[in-house]
Parts: sequence; structure tokens; C-alpha cells
Amino acid sequence: MASGEDSLIARYFRPLATDPGAFNLVDDAAILKAQNDDIVVTTDAIVEGVHFLSDDPPDSVGRKALRVNLSDLAAKGATPAGFVLTLALRAADEAWLTPFARGLGEDAGLFGCPLLGGDTVSTPGPLMISITAFGRVPPGKMVHRSGAKPGDRVVVTGTIGDATLGLAILRGGAATIALADDAVSKQMLVARYRLPQPRDALAMAIRDHASAAMDVSDGLAGDLAKLCAASGVSAVVDAPSIPLSAAAAALLAGGAVGIESIVSGGDDYEILCAIPEGSFEAFAQAAGVAKVAVTSIGTVIADTSAPKFLDAQGREIALPRLSYSHF
Amino acid sequence: MASGEDSLIARYFRPLATDPGAFNLVDDAAILKAQNDDIVVTTDAIVEGVHFLSDDPPDSVGRKALRVNLSDLAAKGATPAGFVLTLALRAADEAWLTPFARGLGEDAGLFGCPLLGGDTVSTPGPLMISITAFGRVPPGKMVHRSGAKPGDRVVVTGTIGDATLGLAILRGGAATIALADDAVSKQMLVARYRLPQPRDALAMAIRDHASAAMDVSDGLAGDLAKLCAASGVSAVVDAPSIPLSAAAAALLAGGAVGIESIVSGGDDYEILCAIPEGSFEAFAQAAGVAKVAVTSIGTVIADTSAPKFLDAQGREIALPRLSYSHF
Repeated sequence: MASGEDSLIARYFRPLATDPGAFNLVDDAAILKAQNDDIVVTTDAIVEGVHFLSDDPPDSVGRKALRVNLSDLAAKGATPAGFVLTLALRAADEAWLTPFARGLGEDAGLFGCPLLGGDTVSTPGPLMISITAFGRVPPGKMVHRSGAKPGDRVVVTGTIGDATLGLAILRGGAATIALADDAVSKQMLVARYRLPQPRDALAMAIRDHASAAMDVSDGLAGDLAKLCAASGVSAVVDAPSIPLSAAAAALLAGGAVGIESIVSGGDDYEILCAIPEGSFEAFAQAAGVAKVAVTSIGTVIADTSAPKFLDAQGREIALPRLSYSHF
Repeated sequence: MASGEDSLIARYFRPLATDPGAFNLVDDAAILKAQNDDIVVTTDAIVEGVHFLSDDPPDSVGRKALRVNLSDLAAKGATPAGFVLTLALRAADEAWLTPFARGLGEDAGLFGCPLLGGDTVSTPGPLMISITAFGRVPPGKMVHRSGAKPGDRVVVTGTIGDATLGLAILRGGAATIALADDAVSKQMLVARYRLPQPRDALAMAIRDHASAAMDVSDGLAGDLAKLCAASGVSAVVDAPSIPLSAAAAALLAGGAVGIESIVSGGDDYEILCAIPEGSFEAFAQAAGVAKVAVTSIGTVIADTSAPKFLDAQGREIALPRLSYSHF
């Protein structure tokens, strides 16, 4: 009776639909219950050959598809509520779908973000996974890109640049040669590309303290420019303060990579936010409790020019490209 | 300053983001305000070469992408609230994007379903448009696939089979030859494929009267089987009662197409519902006010076998294939 598509959904995805509003995926639609919260909606797609590689492990592809959206929710101060999935596949390939659904399902459980519904379509082209994720915030409490004020600190979570170095390694770039003997660093950087770490634990601290926030997905420099433009301000960043992993710092010190690649590379999925000076201590304390590293890298200023990145001597660093753009 | 992707969004899609919760598309997320309604969430993607053809007019592609989702909302008894768009493009082609965005925007206005946000990605493959649409229903009032009871009437809106005949014409199938001299019929059938008519005007009547409902997107026979399976019932359909356009009826009478193709073809985007006998008159009256044709085509019965389609002599029609399946 059931079509191939229905069997596929029942087999791989019904186990992920743990929310009552998903109706076990047997309906055409899902329900997000009214709870006097605002529903935060975000959508991010990943495409084979663009956001992930054909030979990336399917379970990490499933995880990444969800995590890039969870990263957005965290940056908006929202608590995950669920997601819908559009999957464009060339074929119903069990060897790929089984680990894909397992990884996706494990992360759905880990981050409390159940599958609510979706659509599965065939495509003759590259795999594509588009997720629309939902979060909840108290009414009016979503944290915007706009809102940064002169004097606020510019703050980022985690470390910057690892993912773009990981991608460079997968593509056999300069970093591969520089790290020839350092399998551990190579593995760490590749893992940072394949498996973003959504800073969901920081969502409430962002909501409580940030004047503006977004996730860094297309490159720190370009994303900071977007946050500043939305807020009608500029910023000065002290480049040596940008938090780097030991591996990235070594590659930078050795000259295998320039700081401009690090600040304009994509796929960091860290949070960039503006924190008023008076709130920084409380924010840093909350971040400590949440076990998320936060680093103050600069200051918001009253200007409308592009944000400046300064080196250790206070000279402006030329950035030929601010961030990754699809077009 | 702005990347190509940002320019593209600002140029083509910001004009469609008329809802305050879209924040002019300058944020990473949108807001659906709490209003003590349940939010109905549905997602449907269309892929070039699968759901639309490369030479379909871009404005009808934009409209179809939204309308297939509006069709789901109507079948669930929901009032449109907005949508998010994921667009996978090979290039930022102005000649395609301009009419695409215009068609999408006109329909967003026409159906009261504004753009809330989205993601634009590059792909080396076919164009793909994935839309997640939101509607509102009073708490607990979404109409499900389950809920049909023995004795309920099986009812469909509009006419069945036109879209699959329209696709056959675009592909130069038998219908093309049979309709060689009838340009008007050919045009009508093609339009039914390219431009579904969401039955949004019927949403409240569905909510008030239907025991179960879904939209017919993959073929009447297969979709009725799904509705019956979800409800734990079966159905008997009187095939000669199935509403057909004059063009489809002529093709059927002339032998150019069989009834089995009509009931298993996809892309109808009509509503299939079960209406308790005692509510049918009130439902039909409400449909008349909404100016949506509704036709009673059969009866829900207490059985768990697949629904049966009977011909004018009461003989069961063999259906080698129930509906379109992607896999």
C-alpha cells in the first residue's frame, strides 16, 4: 500500500518525530502549540559540494544540517522547539540514509529539537538538506542583529577559523602540508568543519545580556559588518584578541595561513554578539556556568564605515574579501 | 559592502517581506507572534525537472512553490500566516529571478501569506524551491488525515486529473495528439499543471465540517488510501462521480486516457475530505458561498482494505499504480 516515499519516511524519520505535534508524520502538517511565546523561525540549507562534501560521513551531514539551524536559534536567544526537514535525494540509498537519520536523530534528542515534519523529493542533482527550525522566546525577547550601541564590547564564542582550515585540509590546501605530521590537529580542524557546535547553552545569557547577536556562518569579518550595518554602527576589532585554536594559531604563526583567511572563512557557527560594558561581567559569568568560552575582541563605535580589524601594531588589516558569498 | 547574496535578497525578496515579524529580512530569524492559536506548519519542495519544467514561466514556478503549500494549509483548515523560502540556484540570473519573485510576491499578497525569511544557496544542480508555510487555527482545531468514520461522504473539490493531463501535453503524450485542434483545452490543462488553485476559501468550512482532510497532490487513489489508512477505515468511490473538466471528460470518452491515469496522476492540489452525512448539506452550502465546487464521490466504509474505485457497472477498477512516488 505505502509508496516508496512513505516507507522511507516511516523507516528512517518516524523515530525522530517524538513531539506530539508531529502526529507521527502521518499528517500533512504539524502543530506548534500556542504557549504565549514568540516562535522564532530560522531556515538554513546545506548542499552537497557546497556546504558538505560527497564523502563526508552521512551522520555528520545530518548533524550539520540541524546544527547550523540550532546555531541561529542560540544566537537569537531562543530555546529549540522542533524542525521540519526537506530532503532532496537522488535515490533512497539505505547505506546513506541509515547513518544520516541516526546522526540527525541523535542530535534532535541531544538538543531537544524534535522532527515535526518534512518533505522528501527526488532530484537528479546534488543532495540538499533544507531545515526550518523553530525556537521559543518570551514575547518580544528575540535578540536581533540590530541593537548594538557604541561602547558595547564585540564578543565571540569558541574559536574562529578552524572550520575554514578544516575545509582547506579536506581539499588538500596549504594547511595540509603545514600540518603533515600533525594528524590530531588535522582531525580536529576537519571535525570543526563537519560538525559545528551550536552554542545553545548560551542562549539565555545572550537573551539576558546581548544588545545584538547573530551566528558567524559566512566569516567573522562579513558577519560583523552585517551586524554593524543592521545596528547603524561600526566596530574596531583587535585581531590578536580573536580566539584561535592551538592548531590555527600554529598555522598562522608559521605563515601557512593569513589572518585575513581566518576572519573571512565560513562555517564557524560561533556566536558574535555585542555586550554593553556594564553587563560584560555578568555575561562572562553566565557563559562560564554554561561552559562556553567567550572572548571580547573589540568595541562597537559610532561610525558607519565598515568595521576595522587592527593588528598588534594598531595598523588596519586589509581584507580583500569579507566573507563567503554564494553569488 | 553587501555580498552578492545579500544584494539578491534585498533586491528580489525584501519587497515580499511585508510582515513585521520578517524584520525586512535583515535578521537571521523571523518571529511568529503568540496569538493563542496553534501554528500549523507544512513544508513542500519543488524541483526543476520533477515538479516543474525548465521552460515553465518563472512567475508560475514562484506561484506554484507557494500554492502547493497553501493547498496543504487549506486542507488543514488553517488561515495562512506566512512562509520561509529556501532557494537553490545555479546563478543569480536576473531574467529568471525578476519574474519568479514577482509571481511569488503577487501570490503572497493575494493569499495573505507574507515572506518571513529564507536562505539562498548555490547549487550546481537543478533549481529547487523549498517552502515552509505557517497557518493558524484555534487551539486543537487542525483537521487531520485521521478522523474519517464509516458512513462519511468522500468529497473532493474542483476537478481531478487535469494537471497530470497538462504535464502529459507538455511532454508530448497521447493527450497532445487527441487534442491537436483544441488549443483552448490544451492551454487549460497545462495551466492546471503549472498553477494549482489552493482552496483557501474553503478552509473554514473544512474546519467546521470535515472529519478528515488532506490535499490531493500525489494522485486521488493514493491520497485517499493514505487518508483511509490514517483513519483506520476504507472507502468505496463511484468513479463516474469523480468531477472532471470538459477537456478531461472528452479525453476519457475518446479513449486517449484511462480513468486509472486520472485517479493516480499527481499535482491536482484539490482537497479530499470526509464529511459526515449530517453535515454535508451545511458543508455544501458553505462551499457554495466560498465559490468552491465540491462533489461527493463515495462513502467511507468500515474496512481496512484499500479503497475501491467502481465503474458505472459497479465493477472494481484495477489500479496498477495508486499515486506518484519519488522513490
